[in-house]
Amino acid sequence: MVMNKVSVTLGIDIGGTTTSLGFVDRVGNCLVEETFPTIAEDPAAEYIARLYTHIREVYEKISESHEMIGIGVGAPNANYYKGTVESPPNLKWDGITDLAGLIQQHYSVPVAVTNDANAAALGEMKFGAAQNLRHFIVITLGTGLGSGIVVNGDLLYGHDGFAGEIGHTTVDPEGRVCGCGKRGCLEAYVSATGICRTMFELFSERREDSELRKVNAGDLTSKMIFEAARQGDILALEAFERTGRTLGIKLADAVAHTSPEAIVLFGGLANAGAFIFEPTAKAMEEFLFCTFKGKVRLLLSGLIGRNAAILGASALIWNELEKKKE
Amino acid sequence: MVMNKVSVTLGIDIGGTTTSLGFVDRVGNCLVEETFPTIAEDPAAEYIARLYTHIREVYEKISESHEMIGIGVGAPNANYYKGTVESPPNLKWDGITDLAGLIQQHYSVPVAVTNDANAAALGEMKFGAAQNLRHFIVITLGTGLGSGIVVNGDLLYGHDGFAGEIGHTTVDPEGRVCGCGKRGCLEAYVSATGICRTMFELFSERREDSELRKVNAGDLTSKMIFEAARQGDILALEAFERTGRTLGIKLADAVAHTSPEAIVLFGGLANAGAFIFEPTAKAMEEFLFCTFKGKVRLLLSGLIGRNAAILGASALIWNELEKKKE
Repeated sequence: MVMNKVSVTLGIDIGGTTTSLGFVDRVGNCLVEETFPTIAEDPAAEYIARLYTHIREVYEKISESHEMIGIGVGAPNANYYKGTVESPPNLKWDGITDLAGLIQQHYSVPVAVTNDANAAALGEMKFGAAQNLRHFIVITLGTGLGSGIVVNGDLLYGHDGFAGEIGHTTVDPEGRVCGCGKRGCLEAYVSATGICRTMFELFSERREDSELRKVNAGDLTSKMIFEAARQGDILALEAFERTGRTLGIKLADAVAHTSPEAIVLFGGLANAGAFIFEPTAKAMEEFLFCTFKGKVRLLLSGLIGRNAAILGASALIWNELEKKKE
Repeated sequence: MVMNKVSVTLGIDIGGTTTSLGFVDRVGNCLVEETFPTIAEDPAAEYIARLYTHIREVYEKISESHEMIGIGVGAPNANYYKGTVESPPNLKWDGITDLAGLIQQHYSVPVAVTNDANAAALGEMKFGAAQNLRHFIVITLGTGLGSGIVVNGDLLYGHDGFAGEIGHTTVDPEGRVCGCGKRGCLEAYVSATGICRTMFELFSERREDSELRKVNAGDLTSKMIFEAARQGDILALEAFERTGRTLGIKLADAVAHTSPEAIVLFGGLANAGAFIFEPTAKAMEEFLFCTFKGKVRLLLSGLIGRNAAILGASALIWNELEKKKE
């Protein structure tokens, strides 16, 4: 008896410290997965050689009954149009790496690359909170703040492939220095590191006691602030208020640009639930232009507890394969 | 001998005080045109009856040799998706008016409506500064600040048809009260009225003399500020500096959202030339995320001295007719 193999795509997420990969079927089941250290110091060629080894190992586990029909990659500074990764900030890959081209030579299946926030947006659209939505924004709240904007069911890439950098819109032109070298970027306020900076701001402005004053400043994490907020720590609660308000005001700006029906919050800080959602929703509503008031839903990621990064990268290539069929 | 009639479209711009209409050929020649008072107090039905009379009068002048094949309308609060005008702020049209439906019943040619800033964007794309561009933004600097965002050669309408309200993004959450009821909107800083408010701000902060201090505050116009700047008036020059800087910072935000290849400035304030372009370009470049630096051109409208509003409305319907052919 000849058995038809089940089609799967390979989703790869290249992070600054860890790479995750896994094979995902059409409805979002991640069948097998693996993580390995990215090793930021490795040149691209060495990294890619290691990547192939890991792909081979994982694929062997399912290749008897499954067929890989495409590969999607989420990577920092990835250019969807060109398939390249351009001087990624956290990796020592020199210049421009033709990531899609290299992988395609090796595997001869369709390959697509995009940045991690765009991959997250496609993951939400295909398998998460944005299923059946055609106009939405995903905000990823990690160490930084990433965003993916979907318009008419397609990612918005703009002229050069890098549209959707809401983390680097300006909150305050004279404000905090951002990792990108500019001043006052949203990411310097609203992110795991941003909320820690807000905590220091509160330590400087206010006199209330806080358990967090006992932590070495360099060791403070957003998770500690979340725990303190849950214990009713006044300054920690205020840090979430400020973070949410800043985010809400900038989300209202985002709505004025692209008019989404929903905004999905994803990542560590989003998991703080009402502490972040309530002030964000309140400020967004306050600053929405009248035409948009009451129309934009704020949603929590639908991929929590699942392998979101792999699902997002996999959704990218599923999306491409379906577009080709049309 | 049978002569083939030349195809033209009718462009109609409905302003708060004046309506302009004209017949435009495929390459942007406005053959005949007319303006008449909109009369803000008129109910929609009466206005539309007058509109038909004017259309008939103008069409008679060319109908022997030309055929009207479509009608495009630029109107306040116009919804492209529905063809409606919804509670326009400057007109006494109650509720929702099915403008496209009504006109189409009367003339049985394709009709499309959009707001004036979107029409301006299409006008620049078809006949002006944005010809051959596929990703750009047009900013209209009139009494207010309007914007039309073009992505992949199409206007970005978003979920509800109202995307592209950059005039109502937030400059300062505790800032100036805007005509829309919110606080700190870009339009309250960067527009003909916005620069007058900045002038008053400067009168309050600074001690330098200025010819403009002799003008009744209620009579001050952006044109007077432009004239004073040309005479070297320090405060007027500073008003342009601040206006341009505020605009530039928010344009950098806009680039981070949709990654255009160019931004076109249109309308009265744009005609102030270097006074507005230089500080805008400088601040935009300063606040562009690294990926975008040096890549975004700031252009002056290509429709100056031409009937831009009619050309924009006409471009809207030419665009629709061409899409249908594809």
